[in-house]
Amino acid sequence: MTAEAQTASPGVVGAMYLAGEAVFGDAGSFRAVDPSDGAALDPAYRFAASGLVARAAELAEAAFEPFRAAPVEQRARLLELAADEIDAVGDAAAERAHHETGLPLPRLTGEVARTSGQLRLFATALREGSWNGARIDHALPDRKPARRPDVRQRRVPVGPVAVFAASNFPLAFSVAGGDTASALAAGCPVVVKAHEAHPGTSEIVGAAVTRAVAASGLPAGVFSMVYADGPTVGIELVTHPAIAAVAFTGSRRVGLALVAAAAARAVPIPVYAEMSAVNPVFLLPGRLAEAAADLGAAFVGSLTLGAGQFCTNPGIIIGLDGPDLDRFTEAAGGAVAASSPAPMLTSRIAASYADGVARLTAHPGTEVIARPDGADRAGWGCAALVTTTADEFLAARELHDEVFGATSIIVRAGDRGQLVDVARALEGQLTATVHAASEDAPLAAELLPVLEGKAGRILFNGWPTGVEVVPAMVHGGPYPATSDGRSTSVGTLAMDRFLRPVAYQDVPDDLLPSAVREANPDGLLRMVDGAYSRD
Amino acid sequence: MTAEAQTASPGVVGAMYLAGEAVFGDAGSFRAVDPSDGAALDPAYRFAASGLVARAAELAEAAFEPFRAAPVEQRARLLELAADEIDAVGDAAAERAHHETGLPLPRLTGEVARTSGQLRLFATALREGSWNGARIDHALPDRKPARRPDVRQRRVPVGPVAVFAASNFPLAFSVAGGDTASALAAGCPVVVKAHEAHPGTSEIVGAAVTRAVAASGLPAGVFSMVYADGPTVGIELVTHPAIAAVAFTGSRRVGLALVAAAAARAVPIPVYAEMSAVNPVFLLPGRLAEAAADLGAAFVGSLTLGAGQFCTNPGIIIGLDGPDLDRFTEAAGGAVAASSPAPMLTSRIAASYADGVARLTAHPGTEVIARPDGADRAGWGCAALVTTTADEFLAARELHDEVFGATSIIVRAGDRGQLVDVARALEGQLTATVHAASEDAPLAAELLPVLEGKAGRILFNGWPTGVEVVPAMVHGGPYPATSDGRSTSVGTLAMDRFLRPVAYQDVPDDLLPSAVREANPDGLLRMVDGAYSRD
Repeated sequence: MTAEAQTASPGVVGAMYLAGEAVFGDAGSFRAVDPSDGAALDPAYRFAASGLVARAAELAEAAFEPFRAAPVEQRARLLELAADEIDAVGDAAAERAHHETGLPLPRLTGEVARTSGQLRLFATALREGSWNGARIDHALPDRKPARRPDVRQRRVPVGPVAVFAASNFPLAFSVAGGDTASALAAGCPVVVKAHEAHPGTSEIVGAAVTRAVAASGLPAGVFSMVYADGPTVGIELVTHPAIAAVAFTGSRRVGLALVAAAAARAVPIPVYAEMSAVNPVFLLPGRLAEAAADLGAAFVGSLTLGAGQFCTNPGIIIGLDGPDLDRFTEAAGGAVAASSPAPMLTSRIAASYADGVARLTAHPGTEVIARPDGADRAGWGCAALVTTTADEFLAARELHDEVFGATSIIVRAGDRGQLVDVARALEGQLTATVHAASEDAPLAAELLPVLEGKAGRILFNGWPTGVEVVPAMVHGGPYPATSDGRSTSVGTLAMDRFLRPVAYQDVPDDLLPSAVREANPDGLLRMVDGAYSRD
Repeated sequence: MTAEAQTASPGVVGAMYLAGEAVFGDAGSFRAVDPSDGAALDPAYRFAASGLVARAAELAEAAFEPFRAAPVEQRARLLELAADEIDAVGDAAAERAHHETGLPLPRLTGEVARTSGQLRLFATALREGSWNGARIDHALPDRKPARRPDVRQRRVPVGPVAVFAASNFPLAFSVAGGDTASALAAGCPVVVKAHEAHPGTSEIVGAAVTRAVAASGLPAGVFSMVYADGPTVGIELVTHPAIAAVAFTGSRRVGLALVAAAAARAVPIPVYAEMSAVNPVFLLPGRLAEAAADLGAAFVGSLTLGAGQFCTNPGIIIGLDGPDLDRFTEAAGGAVAASSPAPMLTSRIAASYADGVARLTAHPGTEVIARPDGADRAGWGCAALVTTTADEFLAARELHDEVFGATSIIVRAGDRGQLVDVARALEGQLTATVHAASEDAPLAAELLPVLEGKAGRILFNGWPTGVEVVPAMVHGGPYPATSDGRSTSVGTLAMDRFLRPVAYQDVPDDLLPSAVREANPDGLLRMVDGAYSRD
């Protein structure tokens, strides 16, 4: 790694943001590194020591009551203002992210649009209003032996949320990504622990959100962003009494450390950690017979996207052993062999990827299909592809583990029953993919309920990379894909993570929150005496 | 305690139920005890050893796929059949429960109706269908740079649920109580760990549910009920790989032990433990001036209901120090002094209650208002009432702890600000009550957002004991009232605890579950392209 520092991007000065103020860290210093050449980037950043992080949490707590009491329309405007501010600095953010992550510029430009689009989607969801979960059961004054009281229900925000930014989506799963957007939408102030792999991108976006908060007229404490040493000060953030919930995207090791810290608090809090998945892809025989070679090439396109650094990267392919799967394997192997090495997000991720590939290729039960050379550039990774039998895969649990990067394993099942057995043996996943022709319907129908129990999203005849930001999306799944399979981190249902229901019994109408007032001033769809109505 | 065994109730032979079969335990023997006189009741019961409990979990797992695949209407019928069967044995169950718990017979007859009514309410909710959470976002074939796929969402059951029955509601929070009803409604098989304080009542109800399962045509494994030693075999149930979630009502100590066991599993699972609360009651000055004496008498009615053994028992009263609060205290003290001792559920609860009262009355910061004598009957408890200042209460955290039973503490606040400070200092609660006249509106409005952050249910001008089973009810609340403040154990929202969302991307219509099929065959209200519709 060269030590020569490059020129900093415009507007990037090494600041974090505490409730509207640009401040500089008071602990250890660090710099971003360009993964393509190992060059350290200007400016130098400093981590926050304990005091600064605690202050961010306290400012968030102080902002909580006024924030949640503010009109929902003002909250929606905040999200739209943040979207506008991010779009305005989008080119600079994408450019800086390109240097900090090694990801291609067009992909990052797309991520800017995804990030601002996501904020706007939550503004729309706020105005739509079903997130309130409003229910009304009117009193029955004449019920015997006693009057039945009037009971109403709505949902309230849980309190300040600590968001741990991911490294692999420096915009869409980072400072103003889905976790921040959904927490703010729910009415929860946010303290972001920025990812140290892209501090400049974080600073640009943090400044944009800070401007949006100021323009919205809401308390500045609704948003802070700090650089903090994860294993120490990051954990202090999770255990600060002001924090009511945690959202995280990253490794299983770190995710579970946050879960443990949150559970050990005097008042335990929920942690939504999106951690790891191998995203199985099932190639059913009819479809494979139709298009084995095309599927092989398309698969490698998904596998190598972003140097394989997607949470939804297809890490396991399962098909019936035979000539069609051989054709698929040959096409995929060829595409992997022809793929170019790419810089990985951080040197640690690159080293971990190299270890994972070495472990997989050296495993006595696997056979290497393609492992192009080219790893003489430090911090870069090459795609790799191995194969094994379903017998071996079912016996060797270590083959089920995620290797974060562009590596996949093709599992050859002896028959249809064994293909379903492999599905049953899998851990929890973010996604499960089925490639099926119409003649595969019976096998697909057998597989579907198994996959429903294993994954947050099931997709047909596509590839799992690419997560649409729409109300129906689920980006989540049973453990260990996430620490809490009842939720999603993408799509408008993500707000639910930061809300809890409250019932109001015989509360006078003029004291009730507007969502459950008799006259329905917000025009909400509500469950009234057991049936939905806008009356 | 006399050792003389009484005659067993009809139909009570000492059996547990494993997937339709009456079986007898193979571990230690125990008997129910009549708390009114300490007499052991026939028959003898035996706990299940590890193998039997594991078998119940495995039978539940085997039943899961067919159960969740069965038509929703069949599930609704199961709940209605169970309600009918319970009503049919209601008199016998209430009679046996009266002997096993010492609770008054009319209260238990009411509990039978509550239990069957609750099962029927979930059948209605199943047919209403909004629990599916159905969402559809249609494809956008022409979107650039790439087609947007079709994405649909619905919720699926998580898997077999372990239900730990409570001691204080031998019907409504026991074998076929809210946890069992909501889990079955969600499509999750249930293994109940019956409470050893009322095994005969459990046996009667367990047999009734078993008959209902048989009549429904659903797999017998959807319901099992075991007697098991909680700290050992009960924990084994929670840690059995087949179990996907846990519901519990009881003490904080046991609840937290279950949470810890569930978190330490290879695959951690959610635990919904409803644990402890002191259910603060705020007497605002206008209302207190109007009706201090009446409120004092009504309060003691709520306090002494069921010997104070309600999760929602009012354990703390907060008012402004002065003549009106003195009048309230005098009336309440008189009513407590005149109250009769009552048998408590178990000798351990009675001993723990006696300890708690002794601790509270001996506390240097409290003054005893009323502590009637009469505790010469083993296993019986008398109501008690103490008072303290808000200064003392805010300084002495130990005064915030629940004493399970008919004891309460009156906290005298110096002014309105201190009254709100007391609210802010409280732990999470199941309920918070406000007594307010119209002139109290400003103070009530200040108090309300604080209480929203503290409690699952806020009620005005009533008493917290008595939890209506209606769709809008929340019986839950922030820690330590429950281990998971995002949920409720009463009301139809309780189903949500046992469901998780799944997204379907580009899945062919004929393979989709009916809830999200294009033609909407179930006639559900669904969020389609962001707006609710039945089309």
